[in-house]
Amino acid sequence: MKKIPVGVLGATGMVGQRYIYLLANHPYFEVVYTAASSRSAGKTYEQAVEGRWLIGSDIPEGVKKLVVQDASDVSAAKGKCRFVFSALEMDKDAIKKLEEEYASSDIPVVSNASANRWTEDVPMLIPEINPEHTDIIAAQKKRHGWNKGFIAVKPNCSLQSYMAPIFALIKAGYPVKRMIVTTLQAVSGAGYPGVPSFDMIDNIVPYIGGEEEKTEKECLKILGTVRNGKIENAAAPVVAAHCNRVPVIDGHTACVSLEFDLPQKDKPSLERIESVWTSFRSVPQELKLPSAPVQPIRVRHETNRPQPARDRDTDKGMAVTVGRLRECPVFDIRFVALSHNTKRGAALGGILNAELLYAKGFFD
Amino acid sequence: MKKIPVGVLGATGMVGQRYIYLLANHPYFEVVYTAASSRSAGKTYEQAVEGRWLIGSDIPEGVKKLVVQDASDVSAAKGKCRFVFSALEMDKDAIKKLEEEYASSDIPVVSNASANRWTEDVPMLIPEINPEHTDIIAAQKKRHGWNKGFIAVKPNCSLQSYMAPIFALIKAGYPVKRMIVTTLQAVSGAGYPGVPSFDMIDNIVPYIGGEEEKTEKECLKILGTVRNGKIENAAAPVVAAHCNRVPVIDGHTACVSLEFDLPQKDKPSLERIESVWTSFRSVPQELKLPSAPVQPIRVRHETNRPQPARDRDTDKGMAVTVGRLRECPVFDIRFVALSHNTKRGAALGGILNAELLYAKGFFD
Amino acid sequence: MKKIPVGVLGATGMVGQRYIYLLANHPYFEVVYTAASSRSAGKTYEQAVEGRWLIGSDIPEGVKKLVVQDASDVSAAKGKCRFVFSALEMDKDAIKKLEEEYASSDIPVVSNASANRWTEDVPMLIPEINPEHTDIIAAQKKRHGWNKGFIAVKPNCSLQSYMAPIFALIKAGYPVKRMIVTTLQAVSGAGYPGVPSFDMIDNIVPYIGGEEEKTEKECLKILGTVRNGKIENAAAPVVAAHCNRVPVIDGHTACVSLEFDLPQKDKPSLERIESVWTSFRSVPQELKLPSAPVQPIRVRHETNRPQPARDRDTDKGMAVTVGRLRECPVFDIRFVALSHNTKRGAALGGILNAELLYAKGFFD
Amino acid sequence: MKKIPVGVLGATGMVGQRYIYLLANHPYFEVVYTAASSRSAGKTYEQAVEGRWLIGSDIPEGVKKLVVQDASDVSAAKGKCRFVFSALEMDKDAIKKLEEEYASSDIPVVSNASANRWTEDVPMLIPEINPEHTDIIAAQKKRHGWNKGFIAVKPNCSLQSYMAPIFALIKAGYPVKRMIVTTLQAVSGAGYPGVPSFDMIDNIVPYIGGEEEKTEKECLKILGTVRNGKIENAAAPVVAAHCNRVPVIDGHTACVSLEFDLPQKDKPSLERIESVWTSFRSVPQELKLPSAPVQPIRVRHETNRPQPARDRDTDKGMAVTVGRLRECPVFDIRFVALSHNTKRGAALGGILNAELLYAKGFFD
Repeated sequence: MKKIPVGVLGATGMVGQRYIYLLANHPYFEVVYTAASSRSAGKTYEQAVEGRWLIGSDIPEGVKKLVVQDASDVSAAKGKCRFVFSALEMDKDAIKKLEEEYASSDIPVVSNASANRWTEDVPMLIPEINPEHTDIIAAQKKRHGWNKGFIAVKPNCSLQSYMAPIFALIKAGYPVKRMIVTTLQAVSGAGYPGVPSFDMIDNIVPYIGGEEEKTEKECLKILGTVRNGKIENAAAPVVAAHCNRVPVIDGHTACVSLEFDLPQKDKPSLERIESVWTSFRSVPQELKLPSAPVQPIRVRHETNRPQPARDRDTDKGMAVTVGRLRECPVFDIRFVALSHNTKRGAALGGILNAELLYAKGFFD
Repeated sequence: MKKIPVGVLGATGMVGQRYIYLLANHPYFEVVYTAASSRSAGKTYEQAVEGRWLIGSDIPEGVKKLVVQDASDVSAAKGKCRFVFSALEMDKDAIKKLEEEYASSDIPVVSNASANRWTEDVPMLIPEINPEHTDIIAAQKKRHGWNKGFIAVKPNCSLQSYMAPIFALIKAGYPVKRMIVTTLQAVSGAGYPGVPSFDMIDNIVPYIGGEEEKTEKECLKILGTVRNGKIENAAAPVVAAHCNRVPVIDGHTACVSLEFDLPQKDKPSLERIESVWTSFRSVPQELKLPSAPVQPIRVRHETNRPQPARDRDTDKGMAVTVGRLRECPVFDIRFVALSHNTKRGAALGGILNAELLYAKGFFD
Repeated sequence: MKKIPVGVLGATGMVGQRYIYLLANHPYFEVVYTAASSRSAGKTYEQAVEGRWLIGSDIPEGVKKLVVQDASDVSAAKGKCRFVFSALEMDKDAIKKLEEEYASSDIPVVSNASANRWTEDVPMLIPEINPEHTDIIAAQKKRHGWNKGFIAVKPNCSLQSYMAPIFALIKAGYPVKRMIVTTLQAVSGAGYPGVPSFDMIDNIVPYIGGEEEKTEKECLKILGTVRNGKIENAAAPVVAAHCNRVPVIDGHTACVSLEFDLPQKDKPSLERIESVWTSFRSVPQELKLPSAPVQPIRVRHETNRPQPARDRDTDKGMAVTVGRLRECPVFDIRFVALSHNTKRGAALGGILNAELLYAKGFFD
Repeated sequence: MKKIPVGVLGATGMVGQRYIYLLANHPYFEVVYTAASSRSAGKTYEQAVEGRWLIGSDIPEGVKKLVVQDASDVSAAKGKCRFVFSALEMDKDAIKKLEEEYASSDIPVVSNASANRWTEDVPMLIPEINPEHTDIIAAQKKRHGWNKGFIAVKPNCSLQSYMAPIFALIKAGYPVKRMIVTTLQAVSGAGYPGVPSFDMIDNIVPYIGGEEEKTEKECLKILGTVRNGKIENAAAPVVAAHCNRVPVIDGHTACVSLEFDLPQKDKPSLERIESVWTSFRSVPQELKLPSAPVQPIRVRHETNRPQPARDRDTDKGMAVTVGRLRECPVFDIRFVALSHNTKRGAALGGILNAELLYAKGFFD
């Protein structure tokens, strides 16, 4: 099979580097195009990230010598790549505009950025949860008059650790009324240079700008329904989030207490919940997408797990690990969930989105 | 004024060292006696902690040359110290028995250990919250037939960061029905050697043995009432705790969401809450106890505070710092609270207890 | 090919776990036997490491259900494994005695422990440097009257980062007269629980017991010569070591200044040195041993490399990465070298030793 | 005594904040003037550092409400402050020019910046080592035609940990020929935001731009001699430095191996060296300058000290702590030295310089 040529926008930033790294031997896609700010444009990729390549020791061979293009020059990408991954780090409005320009030039955009997350005909995908949201793309194309181009996004990394467990419960017939979530988030989520080390040695920071709002809101779009050319948000669960930055490189941990929207007698037992999680499978598993975890939710029984350093890389860094499932004196249950924020929560999650779109024929 | 001679049991452990350090120039008390396990007994204090003195660079001069006694030999302490601070690190039953032996030998015990926290006539003191719980001591003495001896304890360090804010609200007429608390706790809380560095570099551990149970339960005794020779627990708030160990040396942070037990119209505004906290004063402030903070609850307005590294030492490490007060989409309010776990939460809290007991004449 | 059944002694400790993990899909060897202290004996491996499995999320499937044996019961291993990896963590004399018992029972011991490093007929192997030291095994067997059993060891992890670069220079005709080395060593080198986190957050410890002596001395045996049934130490280089513990999980870094034992005119240029390093290959590469790095010494040109987090995993964690090669105002040259202390420096280094011994027919 | 009004240039950066903090209750000096970039100008100091006050919990009361001035507007400072501390963080040439403008406006500059360190009539002071270098100020004033203004600087923080021990030995008659130094430097030395946390969690960086050159060169000016209107550099010792960034907040550690320039028989014993260090006193001690340590060099005997977390605050953070003094197999002796980089090595060192200049009448 001939691989599909793809581009990476924002290729020199931390998430961009992750894309480059993870796409190195991808069975479907091949990075043939990199673009970044005008500062990097014209340099080889190797030169552009000189002294700040952050993912392992070496840049993948195939990308080292690619000449970085100016991301704002959409025409340069035309004819070179079938679609682009967007890991742009710019002003939100600028990203929105630029991603739309790519789409209008027949270049679909699979984006990691938040700029288009709230556009109501842009799907915000977690392939295990809402693969059918790709149905909205037709409406999106129609609205813009785009031919082949479109935009699909992924949600914030902070909610990836608990969305799959929540969704699995909802899908199994246990709707969640409300939940209180406290996250302990890794520094890679802030990009590079990101959080100063002066703030992360012998310290935590109980605040991440914009994160709590995203976590509380994006949840509802992901659980929403495609109807009348829009994605209509779900009404529940109500989420209250406390987001903290902690001195961890990769892996977001979430402490969750939740209440079911069910009469007491219909609430699931802890055993039932574990069984729902362990057996949860979805479209990416059925389609055997290459980046899909075999088992999306892993349950651990050790008292002190999940831990970022031990569990983040489970199943290619794409599984969510859940542990400490127990009753909650205030709500119904509580547990700890963990996912790899730059794999599942960013670049590899974006790649999985692209794999889903590819499997559904959106890049044909 | 002649200082009162005091002893420190468990003097070589981390909390014991903190006591030695903090009592160095205390206006009331002077450490004249140190005791630890039989392994240390007979050595000078300096020799006993050789290579593992953990608090600043130097052992206080007055203690260096004291010969460490065997803590299990209660008779050695008789006549030497008016009371002892207990920072014993042994099996719980052994601590309970030993603390009672000291008390029965006319040596009051101001304890940091958890062994006697649930004895129903032992006060578990936070002097700003329940100073009147010292009233139970008479019943305790009577039950045991003790003359001068008695036991008073302090609660677990994990709840110190939010107990004062909660209590201030309750006292101001805003009872709390229930709360969900997630703590990010410092490694010094686990003593020394404590948590392995292999678990605390690029990692957090979402579990601390016994901590959640303590946090959920001790709260109710502290808010309880002395009645009929017992401390009767309060009925509320119901607490659900998620306790995490994070790579911070000192300073426990708590993310709190809480619900008032009030009709909507009677719930306090955020402004009112801040005002309650800022103006909160109690017995230790009235008595001007030397280790009491001038202002027990400090409110910060920066979006990213409190932080352990910046705020733990506020007001001698005895103030609780609260920040990020905001509405909670699930309950009524949420906030972040922080206190110094080895000062307010352990040794200096114990010293404040002793100062209260002293001021009330319990050591006469 | 049928795999050779092997055992791991000290299987529950940190290095033992590394062996289990790294041998999971080894082409030659299969772990069929695990042994540890009597405390673990009788439990399944999974039970024995419950709550303290430290290497990734899961224990390899094939080992989970093995019943851990008492390492001191040599007879239990007989007939079960062709040889054993020793990762024993006991008193040195006890290890020495026990390893000899295994050897005398026809079970060769490939050891990670320091107990037998200074036995003069025990080879201390780094396969790229002194593969011919296996010649001493015949003398060792003869002295003890052993038949199939023997002991081979690996050196301390602290010198692995600079030994290969030094050796490559010596072999290329540039003898080293003396060198001053300062190491920044990872906490995994201290085992588990190892270094307390209280000492490794916002701190470094400029001392590692016994490490400087090992580093200074072992170097000379490794560079020594097999003669008259002994390994005779090399006379140079003279090494002065400063060993520090730093808050890094894996990867020892060494800052090296060295002086050649050559007239000024014969000293190599920096270019020549780089070329010597880059082209260095040895017996493991020729034999294509499965754990051997393709290129044992990697040279980097970025000003700020090597760094543990970026470079430790280069070439399966078996390559040494060298950077910052530059002239030294005091000696001739200086550079920074880095190797993975629990892969190259411990378990995978031990496995490479076993692969060499296997390739040479020592397990037949 | 009425306090001398002083200003702080670069008052909002990390070193500037340290000055503000440390001058809070200074017996001689009072901060009445703060200046920073034009971005901060016009705001109160409190507003200007909102959300990034880094030194303890609170800004000193007296400074909170000062309106920050534009540092480039020298005229604004005239008449307001008797002298200024410069903690400017700008382009080096711009700093040089600006510091000279202040000096030419009759405002002496006590600088932390490196811009004027190599001006040959600017003294680079460590008051315990070269207090007589203030003699050069007359020549400096004369060259520029300045009246009251002048510039005095302090050296780089990296060498402060070993300069005092070296100087004490030289002064006692034990000249040092050459030394190899490896530093483990704290992140506060890089200012704020400084080193990204992504580089300092589970990692060290074996490179600090420009640091090795400074360490190797500044040493010689400090040990130099005022002659003919210049400071003539010393010829020895020759220094080779390896500078590393490690995950420590404050406190630079140096591992030093050194060779005396003496015949073997005249070299000092370890006992003699310790005695030289312990008894070392100098001009700041004689003058009882308020920020001077009582004992400039502290020697520790524990095997694992000095450590940043334990020893950096010794004697107000102004003492150098030395430990692990032992023989060196390559040179004569080796040891570990530690100093607080933002107290002794930056702001408090600058304040001590000002105290010396004040005591000598330079601000009259």
